[in-house]
This record gives sequence, C-alpha cells and structure tokens, in this order.
Amino acid sequence: MRILVANANTTEAITALCAAAARAAAGPGTEILPATPRFGPVVISSRAENIVAGHALLELLAIHAGKVDGVLLAVSHDTALEAARQLMPCPVVGMTEAACLTACLAGGRFGLVTFGGTETYRERIAQHGLSGRLAGLAGLEATPQDAVRDPERVARLLHGAIGRLAAEGSDSVVLGGAALAGMAPRLQPDAPVPLLDGIACGVRLLEMLVALGLPKPALGSFAAPQGREVGGIDPALAALFRGS
Amino acid sequence: MRILVANANTTEAITALCAAAARAAAGPGTEILPATPRFGPVVISSRAENIVAGHALLELLAIHAGKVDGVLLAVSHDTALEAARQLMPCPVVGMTEAACLTACLAGGRFGLVTFGGTETYRERIAQHGLSGRLAGLAGLEATPQDAVRDPERVARLLHGAIGRLAAEGSDSVVLGGAALAGMAPRLQPDAPVPLLDGIACGVRLLEMLVALGLPKPALGSFAAPQGREVGGIDPALAALFRGS
Amino acid sequence: MRILVANANTTEAITALCAAAARAAAGPGTEILPATPRFGPVVISSRAENIVAGHALLELLAIHAGKVDGVLLAVSHDTALEAARQLMPCPVVGMTEAACLTACLAGGRFGLVTFGGTETYRERIAQHGLSGRLAGLAGLEATPQDAVRDPERVARLLHGAIGRLAAEGSDSVVLGGAALAGMAPRLQPDAPVPLLDGIACGVRLLEMLVALGLPKPALGSFAAPQGREVGGIDPALAALFRGS
Amino acid sequence: MRILVANANTTEAITALCAAAARAAAGPGTEILPATPRFGPVVISSRAENIVAGHALLELLAIHAGKVDGVLLAVSHDTALEAARQLMPCPVVGMTEAACLTACLAGGRFGLVTFGGTETYRERIAQHGLSGRLAGLAGLEATPQDAVRDPERVARLLHGAIGRLAAEGSDSVVLGGAALAGMAPRLQPDAPVPLLDGIACGVRLLEMLVALGLPKPALGSFAAPQGREVGGIDPALAALFRGS
Amino acid sequence: MRILVANANTTEAITALCAAAARAAAGPGTEILPATPRFGPVVISSRAENIVAGHALLELLAIHAGKVDGVLLAVSHDTALEAARQLMPCPVVGMTEAACLTACLAGGRFGLVTFGGTETYRERIAQHGLSGRLAGLAGLEATPQDAVRDPERVARLLHGAIGRLAAEGSDSVVLGGAALAGMAPRLQPDAPVPLLDGIACGVRLLEMLVALGLPKPALGSFAAPQGREVGGIDPALAALFRGS
Amino acid sequence: MRILVANANTTEAITALCAAAARAAAGPGTEILPATPRFGPVVISSRAENIVAGHALLELLAIHAGKVDGVLLAVSHDTALEAARQLMPCPVVGMTEAACLTACLAGGRFGLVTFGGTETYRERIAQHGLSGRLAGLAGLEATPQDAVRDPERVARLLHGAIGRLAAEGSDSVVLGGAALAGMAPRLQPDAPVPLLDGIACGVRLLEMLVALGLPKPALGSFAAPQGREVGGIDPALAALFRGS
Repeated sequence: MRILVANANTTEAITALCAAAARAAAGPGTEILPATPRFGPVVISSRAENIVAGHALLELLAIHAGKVDGVLLAVSHDTALEAARQLMPCPVVGMTEAACLTACLAGGRFGLVTFGGTETYRERIAQHGLSGRLAGLAGLEATPQDAVRDPERVARLLHGAIGRLAAEGSDSVVLGGAALAGMAPRLQPDAPVPLLDGIACGVRLLEMLVALGLPKPALGSFAAPQGREVGGIDPALAALFRGS
Repeated sequence: MRILVANANTTEAITALCAAAARAAAGPGTEILPATPRFGPVVISSRAENIVAGHALLELLAIHAGKVDGVLLAVSHDTALEAARQLMPCPVVGMTEAACLTACLAGGRFGLVTFGGTETYRERIAQHGLSGRLAGLAGLEATPQDAVRDPERVARLLHGAIGRLAAEGSDSVVLGGAALAGMAPRLQPDAPVPLLDGIACGVRLLEMLVALGLPKPALGSFAAPQGREVGGIDPALAALFRGS
Repeated sequence: MRILVANANTTEAITALCAAAARAAAGPGTEILPATPRFGPVVISSRAENIVAGHALLELLAIHAGKVDGVLLAVSHDTALEAARQLMPCPVVGMTEAACLTACLAGGRFGLVTFGGTETYRERIAQHGLSGRLAGLAGLEATPQDAVRDPERVARLLHGAIGRLAAEGSDSVVLGGAALAGMAPRLQPDAPVPLLDGIACGVRLLEMLVALGLPKPALGSFAAPQGREVGGIDPALAALFRGS
Repeated sequence: MRILVANANTTEAITALCAAAARAAAGPGTEILPATPRFGPVVISSRAENIVAGHALLELLAIHAGKVDGVLLAVSHDTALEAARQLMPCPVVGMTEAACLTACLAGGRFGLVTFGGTETYRERIAQHGLSGRLAGLAGLEATPQDAVRDPERVARLLHGAIGRLAAEGSDSVVLGGAALAGMAPRLQPDAPVPLLDGIACGVRLLEMLVALGLPKPALGSFAAPQGREVGGIDPALAALFRGS
Repeated sequence: MRILVANANTTEAITALCAAAARAAAGPGTEILPATPRFGPVVISSRAENIVAGHALLELLAIHAGKVDGVLLAVSHDTALEAARQLMPCPVVGMTEAACLTACLAGGRFGLVTFGGTETYRERIAQHGLSGRLAGLAGLEATPQDAVRDPERVARLLHGAIGRLAAEGSDSVVLGGAALAGMAPRLQPDAPVPLLDGIACGVRLLEMLVALGLPKPALGSFAAPQGREVGGIDPALAALFRGS
Repeated sequence: MRILVANANTTEAITALCAAAARAAAGPGTEILPATPRFGPVVISSRAENIVAGHALLELLAIHAGKVDGVLLAVSHDTALEAARQLMPCPVVGMTEAACLTACLAGGRFGLVTFGGTETYRERIAQHGLSGRLAGLAGLEATPQDAVRDPERVARLLHGAIGRLAAEGSDSVVLGGAALAGMAPRLQPDAPVPLLDGIACGVRLLEMLVALGLPKPALGSFAAPQGREVGGIDPALAALFRGS
C-alpha cells in the first residue's frame, strides 16, 4: 500500500520529519511517499497562509491522484481536508483529525498542545464536531523552529503543558503541529496520559481505511467533482475537477 | 468610500450582477469596484473548488489592498472570509455572513434557500456560530444557470421554498447564492417574511464598519501577518504576508 | 432619518450620555431623539428591575411609534428587545446585541466587560444565539456611578479586564453597560483588540436597516400584534396592541 | 401551606380554571390562593404582551409577598419567572418549567403541545437549559377560546398531536397553555405516554420546595434586591425593590 | 407511601446514613425502606464498579417491585437510573438527578462538589441534558471515608469549594456523594448559596411523583419490558423482564 | 495479534455471525476469539437489559484479561464500553463507536439504521460526543430475528432507509445492530453512500490501536482500578478490580 504524506508548507525538512515518523509508524507493506507543495507558505502560522496552502496542497495531491492508496495531510491545521477528501479517489486523513479521533478511542476527553496560538485549533476541532471531547488547549510560548534549535526547552514546556492538561481533565493529549511529529515516544515515558502523534495515528488510520475499501459517495458534498471547469491551475488538478 | 465587490469565481457576468446589486444598495458616496479573480472555478459548487477559489480571492484582494475602504466577498460560501479579514487592512464581509447577521437583527430564526446542496451552507453557518438562529435550509432543484435561462421557473421554486421555510419557523429567509443577487425586490412582495440579499446587506454593513473605524487587533489570529514568507505566489499577495 | 435612543432606566443623565454617543456615531442626515421612560428603575441592576423596565420601555416606544425610523435600546440588557421588535413598525436594535453582532463582523470571538455581575449577560448572549462567539466575560468591581465619580479608577479596571480578555482569546471586547457609552475612543488607543461601543454600533446598524427597508413579517412571532386587548396601560401602547 | 396561583393575564376565568386544577392537585394542608393582575393582556399570545404581563405579575406578587409560602406562575410562558424568583422571599415556580422538569423525572425526552405558534416555547425551553430533553413541539390550529367553545374538536386535535409527538420520540408530553389546565385526566386514558399538566406539577413542586426550606442566595443574580429605587410603580413592589 | 431508598454499593453504613437523611426529609405518611445490594462494590469510585453496581441495583429493585410506591437511588452516580425507570412499575429518581433538577427550580446555574474526580459527574449531568445549567464542578481531595474519620477537615474543604463555586457563578451547589447525605443542614448556615442534598430532594420529588400518578408510557424506550428473556439472573429480576 | 470479539447477549449465533464478520475484515496475523457471556439477555433490546449485559460483559472480559491484545464489543449499544476501557489492560472498542468514528473519517455527517427504536442510539452517539456529525436515524419495522427469517424483506427495508438517510444529508450510513454484521458487502453495491459495518471497522481500529501501543492513563477516570473491593462477583473480575 502506498501512502502519500503530503506536507502543506514548502519546508522540505518538515516533510522529511513527517515522512520519518510515518515510516516508523507504518505497518509492513506500507510504502511512504513524502511530498512537498510547489508553492505556498514556508510555515503555516495564520489563517491566510492556510488558504494559500490549501490550493498548493490540492495541486500536490492531484499530481499523485490514482498513484497512491491513501493520503495523509502532514499539516496540523488539517488544511483543505474536506476538499481533498472530495477530490481524491482514495482515502484522505488529516493529522490532527487522526489524533483527535484516536484520542476518542482511548477514552474520555483529550487536550491539545501546540506552538503559539490555539484559537484556530479550537475552531478546527469544532468543525470536526469534536468540541464535546475537547478538555483543554495549551499554546507553548515557542515556535516550531525552537523545537529544532532548543529541543530541551521545548520538551520542558511540553511536559509542563501536558501535566496541566491532564490535571484539568484531559485523558489523553494530542501533540499538535507537524514539527512535533515523532516526539511522542520520547515524551510518553514521563507523561501521565497517552500522547497522540497525528502522523502515527494518521498512517494507521489510512491503513485501516484502505483495508475497508469504502466506496466514494455518489451523492452529497463528498461526491467526486464531475465536469467542473477550473481555469488557470495545474493541469492535473484541472483534470480532477473535470472528472476525466 | 470605495468598496471592492470581489467575486470568487471567474464568471464576469456574476461579478457584474453582484456589482449592480451592490450599487443599487449602496449609500450616497459609496463607490463600488467589481473584481474577478485571475484563476479558479467558473462556478463554485463544491468543497474543492472553494479551496482553489480561496487562493484566487486572496490574490485578488491583495492587488487592491490599501486602495479600497472595505471588501465584500461576493460569493455565497463566504470563501476565505476569515483569512481575508486577517490579511486585509480594511473591513471584509462575506455576503452570506452579512445576510445571516442582518437576519438576526430582523429577529428570531432565519432560513436559507440556495441552489442544489445545502450541507456546506449548514457547515458555514455553524462556523459563523449561528446554528442556533438557523431554522431551516432549502435546496432548489435548479442551478445558478437556470436562474438566467428560466427565471420564471426559478422564481416559482423560490416562492415555494420560502413559503415552506416560513411555515416551519423561519422569521426571515436568506437568499443564498451570488446568482440570486438583486432578486429580493422582485420576490419580496409575495413573501410572508423578509428576504435577505447578501450583497445588499454586505454593502450596508461595510459602510457601517468603515464608519466605525475599528482598528485591527494587535493580538490573536486576526492580527495582520508580519514577516511571513510565502513563495510562488503573486507579488502583491506575498508582500501582504511579509507585512511590507 | 430619525432614530429614537430609548433609555430603559429613568436616569436622564444616562439618556443624555447615550444620546451624545449616538450623535457622535451617526451618519450625516441622522437625527437622534433621546427618550427616558416615565417610570421604572433608576438603574437596572437585577432581573426584577429589568422586567419593570421592559414595560416602561414599551410604553416609551409606543409613544414614538410611527414618528421615528428606527429605535436603539440604550440599555445593555437589551431589555424587551424581541417584544419591541414585534411591536414597532420600524427596526429596533439593542445596544449589546449591536455590539456583539459587530464583534462577529470584526472576526473570531469576543469578550464582554461590564460593571458587577456577568451572569445575566451570559444568558442574554445565549438568547441571541451567540454563545459560540463569546470568549469570556469580565465583571468590574465597580458601579456605573463609579464611572462618573472616579473615571480614572474605572479606566484602569477596564484596561486590566480588556487585556485579560484579549490574552484569553477575545479578538474584540464589547463594552457592556450604558454608562460606558462613548468611552471606546478614549480606551481604544491602549487596547490590543478592537473595542465595541453598543451605542455607536447600534446607530450605524439602524442606519443600515432603515436603508435596507425590510418589511415586517406577516407570519410568526415577530408579526405585528393585531386585535390584542391589553388593559390598564398607556393608551398609545394599548393602541399598538390593537393594531389600530 | 399557602400557595399563590398567579395568573399573568387579566382573564378571571383562566385564574379560576388554574385554581381549580391546583386545588385538585394539591396535597392536604395546602391552601390555594388565586390571583389575577390589575392590568395587562386579556390573553398573552405574543412577545410584547408577555413583557407588559411581566410587570403586572411582579406587582401582583409583591402584594402577596410575605403572605404566601410559594408562588405558582399560572401562565405557560413562565412570564417573568427569574425576576419573580429573585424578588420574592418564597419559592416561585413556572407552570411550563414545572411540567418540563417533571417530564425529565418521567424519563427520556418530552414533547410540548400548545395553541398556535411554538417558537416562543422553543426559546423558553432553551432558556431553561432543557433543549436537549425536548423531542418536539406541536402547535394546534386552535385558540385557547376554542378549548371552551368546542372542547371536543380541541380534544381531537390534542390527541392527534400527542400521538404524533409520541411516535416521533417524545416519552411524555407537556400540555402547554393555562387554558389546558386540568385537562390531563381526561386526555390521559387514550394517550400512549404520560401527559404533564403544569399546574399540577407546579403545585406539587412548590410543596416540595417549601418542605425543603432552601434559603435565598446571598450572592449572584438571584439574591434579593436591596436598596433599589424604582419609581412610578405600585408601593408594594417598590418596597420589595428597596428591600424594606 | 413506601419509598425504597436503594443504595448501589454494599456498605450498610451508607445505606443507613441515606435512610436517616431520607426519613429526616420525608413528609408525614412516607415510610422509608432502606435496601442494600447483595453483591457489588463496597464503594463505587470508578466507571467499572458502576456497571457491576447497576446489575446489583436492578436485582435489588426487582425484589421490591410492586411492594413500594417509589424508588430513590441512593447513589450519586444515578447508577442504572434510566434502566430502573424502564423496569419498575413505580417512579424512580436518582439522588444527583434530584438535586440538579431542584437546583434548576432554585434558579440560575448550579455547581457540584464531590469527593475525588469530577469527570463522571460532568458526563452524568450532560446525560441528564443539564450541562447548560452547570456552572462548575469541584473535586475534594478527600474520600468518602474521610468524611467519617475527619469530618471537620472535610467540612473545611467543603466550605472552601462551595465558596469558590458560588464566586464563579453557581447560584446553588449540589452536594454530590451519598457520604454527604444529611450534611446540608450543618453546612448551609455558612454557605452563600443554597445547598442541595440529593436524598432530601429525591424523597420529596418522589412524594410529588407518586401524588401525580403518571402512568408508564406504552411506547418508546421507557415502556416496561415484555417477554424479554434474561438468563442466569435473580428470579425476581428475570420475572420483571418477562413482564409476568 | 489476538482480538476478543465479545458479544454482550447470550445468543451464540450472534457471536458466531460477528466472529465471521470479524475474520473477514481482519488483517493477516490477526486471530479472532469469539466469546459469549455466561448470563444475561438473549437479545438486548431495552435499557434494563443493557445494564445486566454490562455486568455479564465485564465478567466475560475479565476472564480474558491479559490473554488478548484487544477487545471488540460486538454489541451495537457499545455496552459498558467506558467501563471496559478502564478495566482492561488492552484497547477496547465498541462496534457502533467504531463505525461512527470511521464515518467521520469518510467525511461529513452520517446516518444510522437499526432495528426498532432509535432513541438509545441517539443517546449513545451523544455520549460519544458525535451528535454534530449525526445527520439522521432510521428505525426499521423489523427485529433482528427477521433478518434471519426473511432477509429479503429486511434488505428491502434497509435499502429504503439508506436511500432516505442519504437524501436527507447522510454522507455515509452506519449499520447499527450486531445482527447486521457482515451485511455491508451485500448492500453496498446499491447504496448511494458508504455503508459502515461496526465489526469490520472495530477490528481494523483495534489493529491500529494495538500497533500504536498507547499506554493506559495513570490519571483520571480511565486509569486502571487499584485496590477496589467488589463482592459476590466472578473471581477474575474481582481480581481486576483489586488490580492484582
């Protein structure tokens, strides 16, 4: 099975980090194909960047449409997830979506910790219909870059936030942010509740969805586009819209 | 005051229709500037088209940043609204958002009628936090093109839907879809409840916001981007991301 | 256009304060008519006072019915708003409603700061269907009278509360309480997020509603009363109930 | 124990009907004192009438303050309930509130049937925080007066509505409207689910509250008013506001 | 009237405590029958214990079916409440349910204080559909046993928690936990808001329900079981399932 | 990997049906162990049966604790799911929970079709926090036994219900009821949206959870019981409660 791990920013190092985490989590027989968009934000840290990244991501996916068995959006905002799900002929999963749904399976309510502001995560989880399972959000006073530059400080901040979230009712904690991909194994031993890595959860959920082999809906807003004209965009993406 | 009426699809006729409706609604001294994106869907009728249109719309807005006093998104999906609001130095209003908030001011709960599927409207209204004010949704078995080709049939369908929505608890009805811009005056006389045209509401709300002169927030997810690197995009948009 | 600025308590100084704020916010051609009820609470600070004030306010409005183009309820509890909306032949807007809906147009979630207890504001915002947009409430340890007696202390308290609300996720802050009318310009320069004055927002929203010219609904609970007998009340109000 | 059964409209026949239903439901040792307001609507059938009735009802209650052990609001809109609860030195219960809470004790979700429009009942139940227990609302095409003039037709309409509500998930049905007081025994034998009469439920809940002897809160928005000046109103009501 | 006070754990001392509180609260003519399950947890302090206790409780109730007029579940988790309500031919009330609904009648929002963790109470209140009336939860750092061993310390903790809940918006406070049964009179004098004892509230609500004499529903998920085969259980319980 | 497929009723045929569906869905290397409780309902079709089944199920699980890698609750009510999750040292998944979460990954909102009444499913989905993703419920006028006796009629009913749910906004449909296990492949070809079989989804989600290897929480209401005394129950279950 071939799973596309699609970053939504243009930083190859993040793509590589996510791909490594995906490979570490994947089952035997699962091949991980990393991919980085042609254009868009270096890092997505705001609403507006996320919109441009959405287009870049759909273009990236379109290039791989029909050549992969599943797509993992390696971006913690689950950028353009619903659109990708409609557009692609294979299952698509967002990394934060994956972690949150896995947290539900672990039981109770979950927390989420991420770099910087948390409002857009609160909104995204509400859009996933999971507000009732969310116990708390914690924003680290650090950037994704700090995780590379000073991993010890970031780890300390993470442990503090995880502990507080657990004490305030989180039965598990989602590590939000592609820059944290692969950190769960290191952090878990000292954490009082399970930690959820969106990349690991996402790869495993995709393996499950591919195995289930659900058809695409023929009705509703997730049915594949057919005969839609979209101009001035990449030919592969335009072809998907036409349904040809 | 200069208000940009920004279509999010590439159909000039829709832009013109919305601009005409905007001019008809605008107060004295308000200048309407219509604009159409350089690329993207001919008509937005699905989740995926809406994502591409989001990028096209931000590019279009960036070109006009600093040259207009307010922006009306002339697209019933309120495409990229929050991003545009973050990005632009002036107020931005979405046409469906405008109609829904005006419906709140008219009192009670509102319904929405549109062409085709209604799920994405249900979601959008939920994202606006207004689900509690939504009494019902009605999807016409017709396309925006039908409104041009067979306006009488569409008017009959609209009247039926409006009547049913009112009977089931809608105190007002939002006409959803840019293709319905300007139709309210024709439909209103036979409707039992007020009809809300997003273009008319949006222009008037923008006049109001421009008059209030609220500053942009310095904190939070609507603060203007600063120093953000976004590659492979239109220079005007890239400049807005850099904050220069 | 003539806008009635109707206080719901009997303190003329508050009426005058609100009228001044309304005039400062109004567009050219808008005439502000201040009005104070004949009976009722000197200041509304509890549930029971608000009920008596509701009757007093409807009486006050009835006296002006047909003589004004719009009504702004200059009372932060949006006292009797839905009833006034049903009863009057012109648009009616509540000052807190106005500020909250304008906050929605500014983007994200809003906070509200007021004198004393906040529970009734929490309830009122829930009745407006806007709980999902409310990020936080702050009650100042001060009375409306303190705002007159010691404005510097109240300003300090306000700044502290606004800063905390913004830090905890409010993208804008509503100044709740008629006694704060007109204070936004003084407080805004030091505030990290936009401040919303219900009087200013309300006047502008009324100008917009008057311009739109929406009809009254013929169906539902906001349709004008017709043939209703209400005894022992002011003749003007009784006449409105009879629909004559 | 003396329970005031306070109508909120001025129709003595309704007061008498409710008083009879209250006496039929009351325990031994409970004395029912019927009371009708001095002014206000003959029948409350709209938002605006409900506001005037709120004042009239508070005045009526104030006259009896200290002379009764509990107050039942014999009005299906639970008019001014929270204000009365704050103001009075004894427990106060609304008839629809009473029926809905009793329905909760019967298990599952409840429906409500009433004369005419249902939107204001939907809102009232939401204000009681009970929307999640509400399975459906049914509005009869009849008026309270019809219940007197043509009780057989109204009984047929009621049975039809009760049956539909039960089939659609209501585990019990609230009879909404003071004009239905005392009808439950006649309707119950043919109904598939329990029927709840707000007067009967309310009297019994008041007996329970009086027996419990809960103190009034010293904090918050239900604490008794103290030192509040309210002018131009009945001396008994003004005295309650002053707390003297 | 005979009311079964059914403990769900096997600790006779708790049964006795609850029975004493029930007798203290009961009206004249109400007989309290205490009962303790044959098997199950000594104390219920987790999700899994609650499930076993549910079965033990239904068995206990079945033995008394037809011999009592009402059942009070003397267990703060409202264990198996809905099932007992379906199964028994008489009214059944849970002690926390009873306290929460009585809190609603006292007005505004309530808090709940209990021993240890609060998450399962948050969930139970949500299942009762009362989340919107819940202002806060407080978990004491103490066990039910501490209430016996060191009542003064527990009283101090309780007072602190009650004060904080009231300051943060609770208009009343539910004492959650059977081990607190009967403590309200001692704690109330120093509390700023009414305290609700589930046993006292439950007994009085049962008296009210018995007086109302609501029939069991013939439709829906609370209709009595009929012809259901359940093997390997107590004969009395099996007989109830068969409906014989 | 060994997965226990635990029925919660005592009908071996249902256990066998679910085990077959589980084997058909399982990945290579996954061993399916079917198990049936020692006591309890023949079929669970009411609230009270579900409580007894909860105890029977925990006993069944306890016997297998430590001998299996994951547990699938093969009962559509997700009976005792949270308790089992707390109690067992391995992941536990409920079949309806599994189908609903997988439906979320398929996108949009889901419907659920089952035999008979739907209220308890509505409640269960609310407890899972997924009400916002639920588009509709359909109850077939048929029993699980009919699915065996007259599969063609049941298939016709199912197709009708699935079609209606899809037309009313369900992007996928959960087949609720263990008696429908394994039917999805037969029904899918004629269905307009994906059909979700809880057994298939559950097995695959368990494989994923086992692969992830999340630790049990050390804090909160899902932490394993320790030192809990539960009397009169199966020794294996008692031992789990003691944590020994």
